[in-house]
Amino acid sequence: MKEKYDELLRRFREISVISQISMLTGWDTEVMMPKGGIEQRGNQQAFLARLIHGKMTDTEIGKLLQEIKNDTNYEKLSLLEKRNIHLIQRDYDKQTKLPADFVVEYTKARVSAVEKWKEARRKNDFALFQPFLEKVFELTKEYTKYLNPDLPSYEVLLDDFEPGMSIESYNKIFDPLKEATIGLIEKCKTATKQPDKTLILRKVSIDIQEKISGDLMSRINFDLDRGRLDTAAHPFTTGAYDDVRITTRYIEDNFTSSLFALMHEGGHGCYEQNLPKELRYQPVGNYCSMGLHESQSRFYENTIGRSKSFWFYYLSKFKELTGSLFGDVEFDDFLLAINRVEPSLIRVEADEVTYNLHIILRFELERDLFEGKIKISDLPHLWKDKMIETLGIPVETDSDGVLQDIHWSGGSFGYFPTYSLGNLYAAQLFAKLVKDIPDWNIQLEKGNVKILTDWMKKNVQEKGNLFDPPELVKEVTGEYPNPKYLIEFLNKKYSEIYGF
Amino acid sequence: MKEKYDELLRRFREISVISQISMLTGWDTEVMMPKGGIEQRGNQQAFLARLIHGKMTDTEIGKLLQEIKNDTNYEKLSLLEKRNIHLIQRDYDKQTKLPADFVVEYTKARVSAVEKWKEARRKNDFALFQPFLEKVFELTKEYTKYLNPDLPSYEVLLDDFEPGMSIESYNKIFDPLKEATIGLIEKCKTATKQPDKTLILRKVSIDIQEKISGDLMSRINFDLDRGRLDTAAHPFTTGAYDDVRITTRYIEDNFTSSLFALMHEGGHGCYEQNLPKELRYQPVGNYCSMGLHESQSRFYENTIGRSKSFWFYYLSKFKELTGSLFGDVEFDDFLLAINRVEPSLIRVEADEVTYNLHIILRFELERDLFEGKIKISDLPHLWKDKMIETLGIPVETDSDGVLQDIHWSGGSFGYFPTYSLGNLYAAQLFAKLVKDIPDWNIQLEKGNVKILTDWMKKNVQEKGNLFDPPELVKEVTGEYPNPKYLIEFLNKKYSEIYGF
Repeated sequence: MKEKYDELLRRFREISVISQISMLTGWDTEVMMPKGGIEQRGNQQAFLARLIHGKMTDTEIGKLLQEIKNDTNYEKLSLLEKRNIHLIQRDYDKQTKLPADFVVEYTKARVSAVEKWKEARRKNDFALFQPFLEKVFELTKEYTKYLNPDLPSYEVLLDDFEPGMSIESYNKIFDPLKEATIGLIEKCKTATKQPDKTLILRKVSIDIQEKISGDLMSRINFDLDRGRLDTAAHPFTTGAYDDVRITTRYIEDNFTSSLFALMHEGGHGCYEQNLPKELRYQPVGNYCSMGLHESQSRFYENTIGRSKSFWFYYLSKFKELTGSLFGDVEFDDFLLAINRVEPSLIRVEADEVTYNLHIILRFELERDLFEGKIKISDLPHLWKDKMIETLGIPVETDSDGVLQDIHWSGGSFGYFPTYSLGNLYAAQLFAKLVKDIPDWNIQLEKGNVKILTDWMKKNVQEKGNLFDPPELVKEVTGEYPNPKYLIEFLNKKYSEIYGF
Repeated sequence: MKEKYDELLRRFREISVISQISMLTGWDTEVMMPKGGIEQRGNQQAFLARLIHGKMTDTEIGKLLQEIKNDTNYEKLSLLEKRNIHLIQRDYDKQTKLPADFVVEYTKARVSAVEKWKEARRKNDFALFQPFLEKVFELTKEYTKYLNPDLPSYEVLLDDFEPGMSIESYNKIFDPLKEATIGLIEKCKTATKQPDKTLILRKVSIDIQEKISGDLMSRINFDLDRGRLDTAAHPFTTGAYDDVRITTRYIEDNFTSSLFALMHEGGHGCYEQNLPKELRYQPVGNYCSMGLHESQSRFYENTIGRSKSFWFYYLSKFKELTGSLFGDVEFDDFLLAINRVEPSLIRVEADEVTYNLHIILRFELERDLFEGKIKISDLPHLWKDKMIETLGIPVETDSDGVLQDIHWSGGSFGYFPTYSLGNLYAAQLFAKLVKDIPDWNIQLEKGNVKILTDWMKKNVQEKGNLFDPPELVKEVTGEYPNPKYLIEFLNKKYSEIYGF
């Protein structure tokens, strides 16, 4: 059986290597490629995608899995070995349960819908997009039936994006989070202290922003000997192990954009760099889940990056790096400005508090869609209603409403909730960190970011994919995911900053 | 038969796509990759190399070739189709005639020899390297026996690197070229006008050098929408079609280094960009040969880039771009400085005239080695003798002598001659261009580089690999490769510049 297990891992390793190559072509396309190269890059990426798919669905893998599981010695395998087998089986099932004809049809429908979505958003015309989205929605339901005909479609999707999650578990998280958030926004709105938005509109030259980025990368312990920083229109992170590449973007009159994008992507990047070295190229050596990945980016961006303690230390460095530009700014005012809570239309520009309401709105719509309570054609007006109801702001155009995100056009129903899950995980992990390092804030005030990132490295990043997300959270914090930590974290932080 | 031909081309196309991916990984390694990425990049490149090799040696290709050639309709194929088949057959034979065991042994020996060569060059210790080079030399002879047991080894190697070339044809080229060059060097040395070397040692900031590079790229018609310019320790060109990437390097007190590296690599780059669009992904759509590729780089670097006519136009722009730095410099002095003839030890730093003697020295040694007239252990002292005999300078250390180039350690015997062949082709092609465009120099003096690059595009670059090199030269110029054009070109140019 040893040889079969080794052969299975050899195949996984090969697929990992090809995936790394594929990631390089993706990075290059966004960051380096001359525009003329798009067609031949398409050929390259299509080839690699076919190659990976062919290797992942090779029936030999199914045979090996079967033989290993039927072997009398199977039970003697270590937990780690069993986890590897489980993860390979999970991927193999997902890839092979779909008939080839269906994959072609589904892919085509999503590609068309993404194209149509771009046009519809530009023209602010949901009706144009509606039939395409309906088609993708129907095919997504079909997709879930192939994966698991015994479960409701949305359950399948939620578990697909975040193993172990269900409608029930999200409801239990989002219902209290929604209520608490709406209350918190109200308190911020009526607080006597209000942020001075003009502070963050001050023009910071791109040269200076680049210097700040360089400085911050080393502070959050992103290893530039094993990674790069570049610019991209839409910041992202890619790569693996010893070659992880993050991107940011520089906008002169919005320096916080690059600053927090850098810390966000840096969090993703550190996670990849700190995955367990001895488990590389094995399924257990990969990141745990989308939600856990997001928890890392949020931890670096928000928990550290927008914290009072960090800026207590860093504001003077920041003032030094920006010359005389912020010489007049008081610490409290700066902290309030970078943490201002302000209901807005666009999810990706939302602050730490209102952000989760954008996600919950999408979750509720997705859930109700798949439960048949609403129709695709209801989405625009329900979106508007919910925006009034939760964030209290009117949506003037669908482009700034239901059409703002690409996800649904690509069939990614059930993906959004993992973003808020990232916030939730980050808060729960942080609560444990606070217990383990009671003087964390004194350390951070002295500029010792490393004590926090080292904790995260040891407790989360180096655990790779040894556990499903809820189990990992329990393993580290002693408790399954619980929204109370996020609610407590936000209430405490914002009552302090806004002074209520 | 149509389906078999199409299947053959489909396979070639797939291999081309993988090669492009492989080239991207190579470019990224030199230009972008963080140093930590070297190990995983090695895995990626090894995978791609194996994949390409597997696809090139797939017995199905041999079967298809056989069946097509045996088909009664074979003769009805077009010349282009037959050329495609011929080129695929040529590669297939090369790849499949070598036993797998031999390939492993040869590869290992070369990898070890390259490593040892690095150490030996650093330590200036040929004895350390000698046994490794002897091993590679013996295996290279074995290599040629697999390819063609009926021909002397060096003949096989010469044809391997430049189809259609032989010892005889190189002797006919190099003997007169050597004699003429030695005479020309003597004339330059004793001319009353002598170059002022200090001109080109003036410090030009890297910022300014970058501006000059940007300006020059568009002047030589390298299309930046279909390519990039970056920096690399050792300038090179890679990529294909609509994504061609050139590199240069900037040295403050040697601005001509980046300037001519840029035009040299730009020549390689333009060749790749201008290959026939309708023949992409077919063997006939590739570049013709190493020698032809080098002819393009030399044409852009020397024939245009170091010409009196180009600088007649460009010196004022150059002075503008460099501020007041060259304000005092006279045209004749500048031209003489960038064209100074000066025997030196290192091939890659040699000028346009002495360069060919470096090549001829290597050719003669290789030829005599394979003919059994000399031994590997003779190389150091013969190298010294020949340097005195031809260039008139003593070689103090083997590091600056026989150990200076990587080629032999990698088994690339027979490669060097293609460099001089590039110079020869460039001159012969230019002689034809002069006939076709009698006022070329007036055009160039007006800054119309395009009339020259367009001629080269139409006559050489767009012909791809429709002909073997000697046939292509004959097709374009009406004559097989003939050294008289290079000799005449050099004599005329240098008598004018040096005034003898």
